[in-house]
Amino acid sequence: MGQGLMSAMSKYDVLVVGAGVLGLSTAYHIKRENPERSILVLDKLGGPGQGNSAKSVGAFRNVFSSRTNFLLADSTIDFFTHVQEDLGHDLGLVFHGYLWLLSGRQYRRQEENFKEMSRRGVELRTWEREDLRRMIPDLVTEFEEGDEEAEVMGLEPVERGLQGVKCGSIDADRLVRFYEEEFRRLGGEVRYNVEVKRLILKPERELGLPGEPFVWQDASVKGVETVRGEEIYADRVVVAVGAWANTLLNPIGLDAFMRPKKRQVFVFKDERLERLFHSEGFNKEGVVPLLILPKAGILIKPEVSEGALWIECADNLGRPFKLEDDPQPELTYYTGNLYHVVVKYLPCFRDVQPVNMWAGQYALNSIDKTPYVFEEAGMIYVGAGSGSGLMKCDALGRIAAALYAGEKEATLYGGRAFRVSDLSVKERRVERETFVL
Amino acid sequence: MGQGLMSAMSKYDVLVVGAGVLGLSTAYHIKRENPERSILVLDKLGGPGQGNSAKSVGAFRNVFSSRTNFLLADSTIDFFTHVQEDLGHDLGLVFHGYLWLLSGRQYRRQEENFKEMSRRGVELRTWEREDLRRMIPDLVTEFEEGDEEAEVMGLEPVERGLQGVKCGSIDADRLVRFYEEEFRRLGGEVRYNVEVKRLILKPERELGLPGEPFVWQDASVKGVETVRGEEIYADRVVVAVGAWANTLLNPIGLDAFMRPKKRQVFVFKDERLERLFHSEGFNKEGVVPLLILPKAGILIKPEVSEGALWIECADNLGRPFKLEDDPQPELTYYTGNLYHVVVKYLPCFRDVQPVNMWAGQYALNSIDKTPYVFEEAGMIYVGAGSGSGLMKCDALGRIAAALYAGEKEATLYGGRAFRVSDLSVKERRVERETFVL
Repeated sequence: MGQGLMSAMSKYDVLVVGAGVLGLSTAYHIKRENPERSILVLDKLGGPGQGNSAKSVGAFRNVFSSRTNFLLADSTIDFFTHVQEDLGHDLGLVFHGYLWLLSGRQYRRQEENFKEMSRRGVELRTWEREDLRRMIPDLVTEFEEGDEEAEVMGLEPVERGLQGVKCGSIDADRLVRFYEEEFRRLGGEVRYNVEVKRLILKPERELGLPGEPFVWQDASVKGVETVRGEEIYADRVVVAVGAWANTLLNPIGLDAFMRPKKRQVFVFKDERLERLFHSEGFNKEGVVPLLILPKAGILIKPEVSEGALWIECADNLGRPFKLEDDPQPELTYYTGNLYHVVVKYLPCFRDVQPVNMWAGQYALNSIDKTPYVFEEAGMIYVGAGSGSGLMKCDALGRIAAALYAGEKEATLYGGRAFRVSDLSVKERRVERETFVL
Repeated sequence: MGQGLMSAMSKYDVLVVGAGVLGLSTAYHIKRENPERSILVLDKLGGPGQGNSAKSVGAFRNVFSSRTNFLLADSTIDFFTHVQEDLGHDLGLVFHGYLWLLSGRQYRRQEENFKEMSRRGVELRTWEREDLRRMIPDLVTEFEEGDEEAEVMGLEPVERGLQGVKCGSIDADRLVRFYEEEFRRLGGEVRYNVEVKRLILKPERELGLPGEPFVWQDASVKGVETVRGEEIYADRVVVAVGAWANTLLNPIGLDAFMRPKKRQVFVFKDERLERLFHSEGFNKEGVVPLLILPKAGILIKPEVSEGALWIECADNLGRPFKLEDDPQPELTYYTGNLYHVVVKYLPCFRDVQPVNMWAGQYALNSIDKTPYVFEEAGMIYVGAGSGSGLMKCDALGRIAAALYAGEKEATLYGGRAFRVSDLSVKERRVERETFVL
């Protein structure tokens, strides 16, 4: 009887592996469009978004050179606003803006991109050096003649600031909880602390012979086996496990088209940073926008809920692509490396130690820096967020739900149409993102 | 003194990692164009092409749907002919042709491809079912009504044969030895049994501080460290290590854009196969062309030098992407899997056991099934052969040599121009190959 019940329970219409922001958004949108279907979400960790979603800095922007990335992020940001403003779920949204601090050379190289983005409807503001000096008195925009450090480090003076207005922060934890709660409210099921060991591939017409599937059999993913040996079957399996995707896909001969890349966050809260934090004139909160320094892709984000500044930097050339289950922050990566750039542009960080730090991993698609959503062997893959999965999560969930429904077009929040196959492998049609942090 | 000599010897103009067919072709073409430059080729194995080059079936074709793949292969085949006919090096070339055995459905699906290929100059011959029955009496083109096996296995009748004429076999071992010999003759140096442990990344302006390169330093690959601890430096490092590329690139944060995929070869020599081997009318040798069965991508190649038939099948859905240093053939993969398809179309294989077998690995780019040649961080990568690296080796070597020289265009053998950046990541311009075996 117990066995019978178990078997009955272990077959779902849809099984989503991964309760991060992409898995939960996908589960929610499939359930919303198919309320009668049984959908189970599994995650190896103990709660929603406890993998890399929770380790994100929770920043979002609609400033992308690629039209595809713009559509994905812009509509997702609109959805965030809708959830908070219309539905009354506090997602901790703050539109503090992003401010790219650019040398003259960098500005000129991207000028055509900026014009194209403006034409597309991206709200951008340009600040001249004098504006920046007035509004961010802590910022060094020019180095003194003979500043050897700046010269050795190849630091360029800041000539302009480019502000993305529809950019800010969201509380990633509240966001995943919103999707999880809505999904459950519709009758969706979520099980935590269940680690999937492998995808179960079976022939469409099973013969019950050893060695199946044979090369001449059409086979597809029918379910998963957990590390505890439980087999859970479903008509459709969605894999949304971020940086871990290759560990599930590669063993059955599928590629996740991304590599794991470590990113670290260092948290600063110190009276010496108060003035910088409260830089006025960029937004109604009167806080400094998320700053992107002109060197090494270093971000400094205001975390309004804590009155803190978060510094983030992703691994780059010289640091490995490597999957780690629990990547650790390296204090010396800040103190011995990023620090030297940070204090040159923002001397207020001098001698200030981080009060907290953590590390996570991007699932980086180095080719076009755009996510993948495709179906292969009966499995739907949503991934390769490439560092901007969170800010595109709602659009990606809708696109995956449209793929599940067999539709050619997804309707993004706000009504814009998106061709589902644009994010696939075989009919991929995206622009290589050139505006990378 | 010894130490001084060592240091002096350990700096080259160009260091090529990998003495497979892509590494040796690249080394040869760079040396040919720059005879004064010192070039060292390293390989962890004991001789040229001892990795996956030697494990290839040594077949070539110019039949590709992608214009890029066609250009790469067609010009390389012309070079093979030139080497054998004009230069007098016997490469064991045999133009036995490729013969795709196609169901009506398969033929119709590819019909536009065939027309486009013909327009491009690919010599194709179409054979009707009656021709095939006459010319290959061992071939079953239709299954009897009620043939349950054929039905269960989803085997379709063969309606047509499409023959690629400029297709055949080459002795892979002689080919790598040709490149190696010519390279040495020009003064190039090759060291075997030297395994590279890692690429050495250094800042452009070294400060001699611990922790270099820092995030603010421009860094590039300056050399390699071997597993024995020797450091070898060069102005330019070329990585052409096939399926092993990620083990060198990933640790410094670069992606090789491919996954290793096992392929197995089973060798048959038996009097029951004599008639099939000697199928007449397709080529001047009077041998059966390389056959591609309508199911599961199974190839059957005549190996004229041995009077044998080689059956090859690459891993597919359900079998892992996994790097193996010494992949082993699995007899049961033939006897319990491929065999059932083979004997349905070619009953002469019934109960015939392979007399030899081996396994190798493809470096598969699943996105567009086209190789990569690009420069990043001062390193030139030549790879992702995707199962057709050998038949494109000469073109890829010339393209890599043009990249080394800073030229925008490479001149392929025969004079056709090829835009070097077409095979890069950032300005990639290739067509997704749809005519895959």
